[in-house]
Amino acid sequence: MAERLVVIGGDAGGMTAASQARRRRGDLDIVAVERGRWVSYSACGIPYVVGGQVDTLDDLVARTPGELRERFRIDVRLRHEAMAIDFDTREVEVRDHERARTFRLGFDHLMLATGARPRRPPVPGADGDHVHGVQTLDDAAHLLAHAEAAGSGCRVVVVGGGYVGLEIAEAFLNRGATVTVVDRAPEVMQGLDPDMGALVSAAMRDHGVDVRCGVEVTGFEPGAVHTVDGTLPADLVILGTGVDPESTLAAEAGIGLGVRDTVAVDRRQRTDVDGVWAAGDCCQSWHRVSQQPVHVALGTVANRQGRVAGINLGGGYATFPGVLATAVTRLCATEVARTGLGEGEARAAGFDAVAETIESTTRAGYYPGARRLRVKLVAERGTGRLLGGQIVGEEGAAKRIDVVAAAVWNAMTAAEVIDLDLSYAPPFSPLWDPVAVAARRVAAALDAG
Amino acid sequence: MAERLVVIGGDAGGMTAASQARRRRGDLDIVAVERGRWVSYSACGIPYVVGGQVDTLDDLVARTPGELRERFRIDVRLRHEAMAIDFDTREVEVRDHERARTFRLGFDHLMLATGARPRRPPVPGADGDHVHGVQTLDDAAHLLAHAEAAGSGCRVVVVGGGYVGLEIAEAFLNRGATVTVVDRAPEVMQGLDPDMGALVSAAMRDHGVDVRCGVEVTGFEPGAVHTVDGTLPADLVILGTGVDPESTLAAEAGIGLGVRDTVAVDRRQRTDVDGVWAAGDCCQSWHRVSQQPVHVALGTVANRQGRVAGINLGGGYATFPGVLATAVTRLCATEVARTGLGEGEARAAGFDAVAETIESTTRAGYYPGARRLRVKLVAERGTGRLLGGQIVGEEGAAKRIDVVAAAVWNAMTAAEVIDLDLSYAPPFSPLWDPVAVAARRVAAALDAG
Repeated sequence: MAERLVVIGGDAGGMTAASQARRRRGDLDIVAVERGRWVSYSACGIPYVVGGQVDTLDDLVARTPGELRERFRIDVRLRHEAMAIDFDTREVEVRDHERARTFRLGFDHLMLATGARPRRPPVPGADGDHVHGVQTLDDAAHLLAHAEAAGSGCRVVVVGGGYVGLEIAEAFLNRGATVTVVDRAPEVMQGLDPDMGALVSAAMRDHGVDVRCGVEVTGFEPGAVHTVDGTLPADLVILGTGVDPESTLAAEAGIGLGVRDTVAVDRRQRTDVDGVWAAGDCCQSWHRVSQQPVHVALGTVANRQGRVAGINLGGGYATFPGVLATAVTRLCATEVARTGLGEGEARAAGFDAVAETIESTTRAGYYPGARRLRVKLVAERGTGRLLGGQIVGEEGAAKRIDVVAAAVWNAMTAAEVIDLDLSYAPPFSPLWDPVAVAARRVAAALDAG
Repeated sequence: MAERLVVIGGDAGGMTAASQARRRRGDLDIVAVERGRWVSYSACGIPYVVGGQVDTLDDLVARTPGELRERFRIDVRLRHEAMAIDFDTREVEVRDHERARTFRLGFDHLMLATGARPRRPPVPGADGDHVHGVQTLDDAAHLLAHAEAAGSGCRVVVVGGGYVGLEIAEAFLNRGATVTVVDRAPEVMQGLDPDMGALVSAAMRDHGVDVRCGVEVTGFEPGAVHTVDGTLPADLVILGTGVDPESTLAAEAGIGLGVRDTVAVDRRQRTDVDGVWAAGDCCQSWHRVSQQPVHVALGTVANRQGRVAGINLGGGYATFPGVLATAVTRLCATEVARTGLGEGEARAAGFDAVAETIESTTRAGYYPGARRLRVKLVAERGTGRLLGGQIVGEEGAAKRIDVVAAAVWNAMTAAEVIDLDLSYAPPFSPLWDPVAVAARRVAAALDAG
């Protein structure tokens, strides 16, 4: 009989692993169980459907179950939830929610891609059904129904000003709602240093979002969010407070956990149980700069980890080289990006960090459409090595973070980045690329002190 | 008496060197002689003034002579041409064209930044005054006068389909002229491989430029360009055939020349004569991938070399780490970029090269404004090391070349680039960045063969 791979979770990490495994092993029997109604979709696209720029949730689906069956011979089962894993019999207990029955599914190899769930503040009412996450297409369907009905009277409160929280805030703003963002931190976007985050808060406010930082939420009830500053009326409450790994199933089965209750994996995405692999939002990553284990819930990381797991599952050899937590978004016409360690993160990780910020433009100053941007770079005193960078600016600013990511990835020093042979033409950049200008400033600061 | 630095040539290489030297040595007497009427300008911006997107030639001036005097105490002399260098007396013979007098200027240090001149085909009439280059703001003033008078009747012939040739072709098209580009190569843009260059030819033709490849020019006369295929009527003829280093002055003074008659320099931008430095279009570079001396006439290289020369001139220490000849432009709504070695260049340099090209989009496929792009990557068989890349595509395509440049710069393998932590969000990229997709394809081809 053919060996069977059971994949738990049908999104980026799981489906990438399954399709990679298939490429190398035509003989595998591959079954994927997904508790939701969709597989292989772009969760990152949810705010754009809710906001109305993208027409339907179906547009976010990369591959339907039918395509996965046909092209990769993956037996995809929707509304099927893995309830328990039994390593004595090597079986997964699966609940078929559609048919309301439970059955056991044997496996030789097991791929955990259970994803993450919205982090809920530890206050009364946070578990309420009216407090929404932005995690799955099922969540998205709820939010979209609200958005389409929103109109100008609707009051939306977003708790937490992370990427997704702010993206969804803008989406509801586009729909005509009155939107408040409450964040307990001094600035939104904790992925950025506060000086850069402040630029984002300002941009959101300029566009009409009521951003309230340094405000702690104390409780939820239908129609209201309570804070230390008083009560906000809320027709809809959305969580933008980040996510926690969905690792309960793994933990209950005795699989070892890592930082922040992620599923612990080695470089090849193996858990501590033989034949069991993990990838994506449920599992641990390794930060290339801090050299510490981290939890980074991003689609890019899930895909890359899934690919590594799938190659190894299929009998190949691949290792995951770590993350920089590179991320980008656009919020109310302001582009935002980060990679590696911020100034605060670098100090917290024990580096003696030097940070400098420069202002420049996206094109030659004299060229039509030149827009402002700010680039912040962080380097290590002594070695001069770049540790990370952040960019906030107007159109054409943010994707430049990839150059910083490549520089940090390769442990380049700030001085080396000055001479990096970057492209230039007036419609694309000033003669000295903004990243090079920032590198000069940091290199000078390193020299000076 | 203060030591004197004489700078010959007042554009990117020379003025960057002078200002860097000033930062480190307040005591230097710095004199810059420039035979034209402008210093410190963006020659790369000329096509955009000629085309009408940028208002005036003055917009291209980064620093006026007055600003250079005031901020850096550089004594800038316009319309002053260095005629000869005498190393016995350490004097430059200078011709003041305005006052029609010649004088000698003593120097302790000499900075050569004489730039380049348009390459003229070795055919009758190529030296005629009506055959224009696109090199200096003086050239630009001529072209602008023609462009403003052009109207729809004007017939412009551009000889040579390099970056500048095609940019100026588009500029005259914008002005309503009838534009023909004649190139003797099989495709325009010899900085690209022919398969990528063909995409540019097609884009130019789609916009109404008559692009004729594989056609040799046999002679020029007022009103006509003769080719092997017949005679083209021409109210204006422009050379887009590349440039040669302006090194005659150096050669006549006995300074050693390098590849293609460039001024030879070491890593610190020193010529073979003590106290004499060079930077920019007149001088030699070193290619990081081929490890061969090259002539790369680009503003970015001139600025970086000038900075290195200036730091060393000022008593500091810096070395120039070489070039990848990274370049970008936009032609008739098509973005074009290259870095490192192309497939043909790699083979010519002795590499066993593997090249693959992929198609992708600039944003997530479902996101509004997603545009097509093609990415070609070249890698070395055996090591798997990336040697170079080329991108041709629509809006949002080309600046991604910088990631390829950073990868090539750091000698990353194609397989390593797959996992590079690049940024993703639907408005900026597909989930797998096009550069990573191309890296996967090349890595697979390397594995297969």
